[in-house]
Amino acid sequence: MQSTICALASGQGGAVALVRLSGPRALDLLKSLTHKDGAFAPRQQVFCTIYDGGNILDKALVTYFQAPHSFTGEDVVEFAVHGSSYITGRLLELLCQAGATPAQRGEFSQRAFLNGKMDLVEAQGLCDLIAAGNKSAHQLAMHSLDGKLSARLNEMKTKLAELLAQIEVRLDDVDEEMQPLSPDFIRQEISAVLTHIQTLTDTFSVGRLIKDGLKVAIVGAPNSGKSSLLNALVGFDRAIVTDICGTTRDTVEETLEVNGQKIILTDTAGIRAHALDVAEQEGMRRSLRAMEQADVILFVLDAARPLSAEEKQLWNDIEKAHKRTLVILNKCDKPGAVSTVDLPHIADYKQLSVSCKKNIGLDEIKTILTAPMNNAPTDGLMLSNLRHYEALLRAQTELESTLIRLKNHAGGEIQAEHLRGALKYLKDLLGEITPDDILGIIFSKFCMGK
Amino acid sequence: MQSTICALASGQGGAVALVRLSGPRALDLLKSLTHKDGAFAPRQQVFCTIYDGGNILDKALVTYFQAPHSFTGEDVVEFAVHGSSYITGRLLELLCQAGATPAQRGEFSQRAFLNGKMDLVEAQGLCDLIAAGNKSAHQLAMHSLDGKLSARLNEMKTKLAELLAQIEVRLDDVDEEMQPLSPDFIRQEISAVLTHIQTLTDTFSVGRLIKDGLKVAIVGAPNSGKSSLLNALVGFDRAIVTDICGTTRDTVEETLEVNGQKIILTDTAGIRAHALDVAEQEGMRRSLRAMEQADVILFVLDAARPLSAEEKQLWNDIEKAHKRTLVILNKCDKPGAVSTVDLPHIADYKQLSVSCKKNIGLDEIKTILTAPMNNAPTDGLMLSNLRHYEALLRAQTELESTLIRLKNHAGGEIQAEHLRGALKYLKDLLGEITPDDILGIIFSKFCMGK
Repeated sequence: MQSTICALASGQGGAVALVRLSGPRALDLLKSLTHKDGAFAPRQQVFCTIYDGGNILDKALVTYFQAPHSFTGEDVVEFAVHGSSYITGRLLELLCQAGATPAQRGEFSQRAFLNGKMDLVEAQGLCDLIAAGNKSAHQLAMHSLDGKLSARLNEMKTKLAELLAQIEVRLDDVDEEMQPLSPDFIRQEISAVLTHIQTLTDTFSVGRLIKDGLKVAIVGAPNSGKSSLLNALVGFDRAIVTDICGTTRDTVEETLEVNGQKIILTDTAGIRAHALDVAEQEGMRRSLRAMEQADVILFVLDAARPLSAEEKQLWNDIEKAHKRTLVILNKCDKPGAVSTVDLPHIADYKQLSVSCKKNIGLDEIKTILTAPMNNAPTDGLMLSNLRHYEALLRAQTELESTLIRLKNHAGGEIQAEHLRGALKYLKDLLGEITPDDILGIIFSKFCMGK
Repeated sequence: MQSTICALASGQGGAVALVRLSGPRALDLLKSLTHKDGAFAPRQQVFCTIYDGGNILDKALVTYFQAPHSFTGEDVVEFAVHGSSYITGRLLELLCQAGATPAQRGEFSQRAFLNGKMDLVEAQGLCDLIAAGNKSAHQLAMHSLDGKLSARLNEMKTKLAELLAQIEVRLDDVDEEMQPLSPDFIRQEISAVLTHIQTLTDTFSVGRLIKDGLKVAIVGAPNSGKSSLLNALVGFDRAIVTDICGTTRDTVEETLEVNGQKIILTDTAGIRAHALDVAEQEGMRRSLRAMEQADVILFVLDAARPLSAEEKQLWNDIEKAHKRTLVILNKCDKPGAVSTVDLPHIADYKQLSVSCKKNIGLDEIKTILTAPMNNAPTDGLMLSNLRHYEALLRAQTELESTLIRLKNHAGGEIQAEHLRGALKYLKDLLGEITPDDILGIIFSKFCMGK
């Protein structure tokens, strides 16, 4: 028999806290804690006294959700208690004493998935939705949660499954009574799915940026104005407060919202300020690492100062990083400031005159930085999850192999094998054949109480 | 017309967040955000799509509470949305754009009070309940919230009001047609109320400790084992995590739960470690301040070391503080450790042999420290709020004046005047005649969203 799980579903520290209970014993436990024996009408908020032995623990609104009409698909009870750490802690203790077990991270969602309330893509959308800190990331997750992405994937899956069935039925047709499938038909069906896959995988580079944020490395020589640029960019936009578990905050990282998009600025400021050998090397290493991990590099120069040997060397490193790079000609308000610099292949890069002091060019930086993130498809269907992206790439490889084999007049057996492979990746993506241990890993990244 | 207020009622950072809306436009705003025009059955949790213009903000459970059957007594709507900071922030923005205003701290409770859903004593209990971090403080607040304390105060108020009415009606009785009240009857009625007041005010010293915690100052010479004692006491009991706004944490303070009671240990460790003059003076000052603010002083001595001049001076200071003091003869496991020390008036104090290393005497310290806090009256009626305590003291003074005047054969006018005074304090306590600015101050100490 399935266990009954409980957890705090809301955050700590509010006026109200929500404790959630799911499983076959949920209603029993509710009745035992409230000393009520009568019926609880489903979805009706009832004001109850919750007892702790002979004492009153709280007077709270409780709601019973009858299986299968609940989030998890099981019997669910929600206690909206007063938000004290004593009450929530004690209530969970009492529930566990009465036979419930503390829920693991994502266990409510995992049960919802196992009970067919959502597929794995929708579940991932739910996890992303809770973590989303800005409008774009929120919409991206919502399209995944509300089943639009799943519908597209299911459509592709059905098309492949039908094609496979037609091929397989002919493999069994030893008397060759059926009309053989025309290679053109097979090619057409597979190409249609490949187009869908291509459309989706094309969105990943942008979807990933929207979900995780655009990583921007600010590099440059000391006193070129890197910190001023960081402060100017941060100062004009509100800093994002993330609730995501495990968000590590490096001292040189600033997360902010620019034009409704998440930007993570990494300032390598001060790395060359101390010209001591060891510090210099460590600074260099950090600078290179920041550039490697970045999506965009902002190379900051003092436009009123001639290029130093150090800056020419840094440009060499930047070019080697092969990243989208903006050359910021800072302090453009100073007398003698140039509007272009001469560096190898500089013509391939955008140069921008900026003054942090006089607020010149800052809006343009923001527009340029976030421009690619605004390229969301009109139907909102995007990939932002590496697992989904990789599954589709694998399916694509299988389907392309089918097309090549088809060209080489391979038999139905071989076509069927590749199609089965592609289908497997789609089913795994939707969670239909995902092994338990993989499911465990996926749901363990969810937040507590969900 | 009353405004419609909104706020996040749950804590930040959970899987689910609760946004609360109260006021005459609550239902309108719910309909406008969910694009639903039909009826919302009261207290029924309905799964709705919440729109942000043309986009979906969230799919969430919403509940409508019809006035007057709600927490505030007004129309209330609760949105149980996904717990992302974007969703809660945007939902509050949308509500405010549609005409709601952000709630002030305690504004929901203030409306509940103004609409007669609770009196001021119950409201204070609610505030204390949310802040309560341990069982005793929780029960104390619950007795106040569930109206037991209010019932007792109302009983006293009614008794006085009836007595006053009987006196006043005779003042109007110019023809002296009524039987005069016997002084014994008046004395008896007032004494009954005075007994109730005394019983309640007697509980304040303990109630205050239960609610706010017992402040314990650990003082002693360097190397007497103050830090070991602190660590031993803290280590064996779990540290309390408080959610109370404005809890300042001094570096030398540790809050912990001992025998279900809150203890705040202030360690003055190290204050004499540096014998520099300035540091010495500052240490001395801090030590004296900690003793002044403490409910109990633990004077820690190394039992295997002769008393130093410094310790004798410190004892002098401790005696002057006039606080409950325990003399801790630490390191009692060491050879040559004494079991009593010779200090002025030492016979008036409890001496306790302790070894932090061998866990001797620690439980006894905890038992002694928390013993007075276990003296809660059997009916659970206690005062823990200074405002309540002071109001009762003032009422007591008025009633005692009445008794004195009665003894001096004062007329009904003078008796009535004192009774009116006492009655005013009781009514103010219950919030019946409390001025708006005082109410504002009281409710502003509540948490957000309540």
